[in-house]
Order: sequence, then structure tokens, then C-alpha cells
Amino acid sequence: MKGKFIVIEGLEGAGKSSAIACIKALISARGIDVVTTREPGGTPMAEAIRECVKHPWQEDVAVETELMLMYAARAQLLNNVVWPALARGSWVIGDRHDWSSLAYQGGGREIPDAIIEPLRTITLKGFCADLTLYLDVDPAKGLQRAATRGALDRIELEKLSFFERTRARYLALAEADPNAVVIDSMQPMERVHRDVEQHINSFMDNHVPLA
Amino acid sequence: MKGKFIVIEGLEGAGKSSAIACIKALISARGIDVVTTREPGGTPMAEAIRECVKHPWQEDVAVETELMLMYAARAQLLNNVVWPALARGSWVIGDRHDWSSLAYQGGGREIPDAIIEPLRTITLKGFCADLTLYLDVDPAKGLQRAATRGALDRIELEKLSFFERTRARYLALAEADPNAVVIDSMQPMERVHRDVEQHINSFMDNHVPLA
Repeated sequence: MKGKFIVIEGLEGAGKSSAIACIKALISARGIDVVTTREPGGTPMAEAIRECVKHPWQEDVAVETELMLMYAARAQLLNNVVWPALARGSWVIGDRHDWSSLAYQGGGREIPDAIIEPLRTITLKGFCADLTLYLDVDPAKGLQRAATRGALDRIELEKLSFFERTRARYLALAEADPNAVVIDSMQPMERVHRDVEQHINSFMDNHVPLA
Repeated sequence: MKGKFIVIEGLEGAGKSSAIACIKALISARGIDVVTTREPGGTPMAEAIRECVKHPWQEDVAVETELMLMYAARAQLLNNVVWPALARGSWVIGDRHDWSSLAYQGGGREIPDAIIEPLRTITLKGFCADLTLYLDVDPAKGLQRAATRGALDRIELEKLSFFERTRARYLALAEADPNAVVIDSMQPMERVHRDVEQHINSFMDNHVPLA
């Protein structure tokens, strides 16, 4: 792959959107073409799958169903957007990626790794992000911020303990991954952006060929 | 499980719908409660997933996406409809089930077993039909029948060779399964129904407790 894949992860209200705007500007400023994606979603079909996942169904949603829909949408996005963009040399900034499934479905819903791993193998085929920025926020604070934006979706309506398990898994993933960084998103926003900027500039210094 | 799960499989135009009506009448006549299902679909969420699968998307649909959507819908149907019905003693007649994925995605799309098997494990948890009736039809003839019913969906628009591989897989599955029967659906309809009736009555004679 000629381009780089940078993923932003975090709970609702962690500040992913404004971090992504900041990162996009930094990368574009170096003359690199940038593609932004969101998961689940990012293609017309993947957005329709996102609707299926997030809709407030009156029926129970099997954990296996939710999980397979996440990977179905991911396969669609990788094949049709992410991989073609990286192959032509664009950089891709992902608003969520595989860690969201590990953290929300694995951590939050406590789905065993033995169920998630085969789906990762089928979908990712060994692909992973070049850099993951995990914006860490206390779930109560994040949900408070998210709630001010409007109605919460089916998953955002889970109990606080669900998000505490999700956060714990995020932190464990970040600790185990040398290509990941934890950013304290409970700081004032200008400090969060300063940290994001510092990590992105450092990554670009190491990965952008000199003109 | 107190009830029995009978599945009808076959290519488009094989005559599944009229066979199902016939089977439903036979089972009901013995005083057994019958639930009919279709796949993909059968719950509001699974029907939404069906729409995602069948829609004529303008983008390429990754084979992994199609496959995971099929199993996502199946998990939803099993958990919310099939298993509860069987547990309370109803019999379930399925218009398609797992063989459709093995035949269409495995046979037709040539997705390796190594990719399909983990999804089967996650979704089915060892569950399988008590009786499968495979209605065998020549693909060209079946598609001709199906086309008279209206517009074909995304999968029904595949090439004839796709359906020939699908049929070959169906026949191989039927040959390997002691709980499966092949019915020649190219016979006149009254003969097809006579064969269906004979197999269903014989199955009920062996499985319905005497009143």
C-alpha cells in the first residue's frame, strides 16, 4: 500500500470528529490527498448496513447479528474505498475501524475472541492501521457530551457498565499496539488538539518522503 | 427441541412456495402448530438485512459482505423465531436455510469452506434441519419460471454458470445428508406434490407421537 491508514477511535463524545478535521488539515497541508471514512458505513451499501445496526428494533438483536453486520459493512468499505485509496497513494483517516468491534462487541457485549477472530480474518486479511489515535474519555462524561448532539442510537443507549467495559478494552488494545497512541480527551479541547497535532506531525515526519 | 425443522431448498423457480403451502397443510392436518419462515428474512431486522443483500447496488458487493449479511439475518431468525417456536413444540417450515449459503455463496460464488465454516459455527451452534427437501430443477428452466413472476434481484441476475455451480453444490449436499431428499421438480406439478406429500407423510409417521 502506498498510502497510510490512520484510525481515530473512542467512545461517543470523545471528540473524534473535531480531531479528524484537525488531522485532515495537517495531512492536506503536506500536499497529500486525504480520504475520510466512517464505520460502520462509508459506501451506500455499508451505510444501509449501518442503518440496520443502529435502528431501534423492537426485537432482540442477537450479538452475533450485530457483530456480523459490523464486519459486513467493514468488508464493503475496505474493498471499495480504503484499499483502492491506499493503493493510489492517498492517506485514509478512519472514524472508527476494527477496534470499535473489539471494544464494543468484544468488551462491551462480552463476545468471546473465539467468535470475533474468524470474522477479523475473513474481513481484514491481515490488514491493520498504520497509526491509531485512541481518544480516551470517561464514559459518563462522553455520553453527556454525545447526548447534547441529539438522540442516542440503539448502541449508545446501553448502560454505563457497557461503556466502562468498552473503555477498558480500548485501553488494553492501545497498550498492546506499538502503532497506537492514547490521548487524554478529558483535557480542554485546545490541549487535545495540541496532542493530536504532535502525534500526527511526528508520524508524518517519519513517513512522508521529502519533496 | 420439541418441534421439528423442515427446510425447502432449491434454485429460483424450483417451486418452493407451492411445496411449502402443501407441506403446511399436511402438518396442520395432524393438529400440529406450524410456523413458516423465509431466508434471508423472517423478522423485521432480518427483512431489512434481506433488502441490503438483494438491492441492485451500483457498487461492487464483496463476497464476504454478502456472506456475512446472510449469516447475520440467519442468526436473527434462529434466535427470535425458529428456536423459540421449536422449543414450544411448533414445527417450522423454512423457505431456504443454511444450504442456500453453502450452495449460492459456496458453490455459486466459489467462496472457500474455510471462510464459510466459521460463520456457520458462530450462527448455527450445531443446529441443523430435521428434514431437508431439495427441489431439483435445471437452472435455465427455473430461471425462466422465476422471470415470469417479475423482476429478478441482484443475485438472480447472475450468469447461468453461477446457477449450475449452485445446483451442483445442492446435489452434493443432498447426497451427503441422510436427512435430505431430492425431489425432481422438472416433473409435472402434481407429481412434484405427490413426492413432497409422500416424504412429509413418511417423516410425520416417524416423528409425530400417536394421539
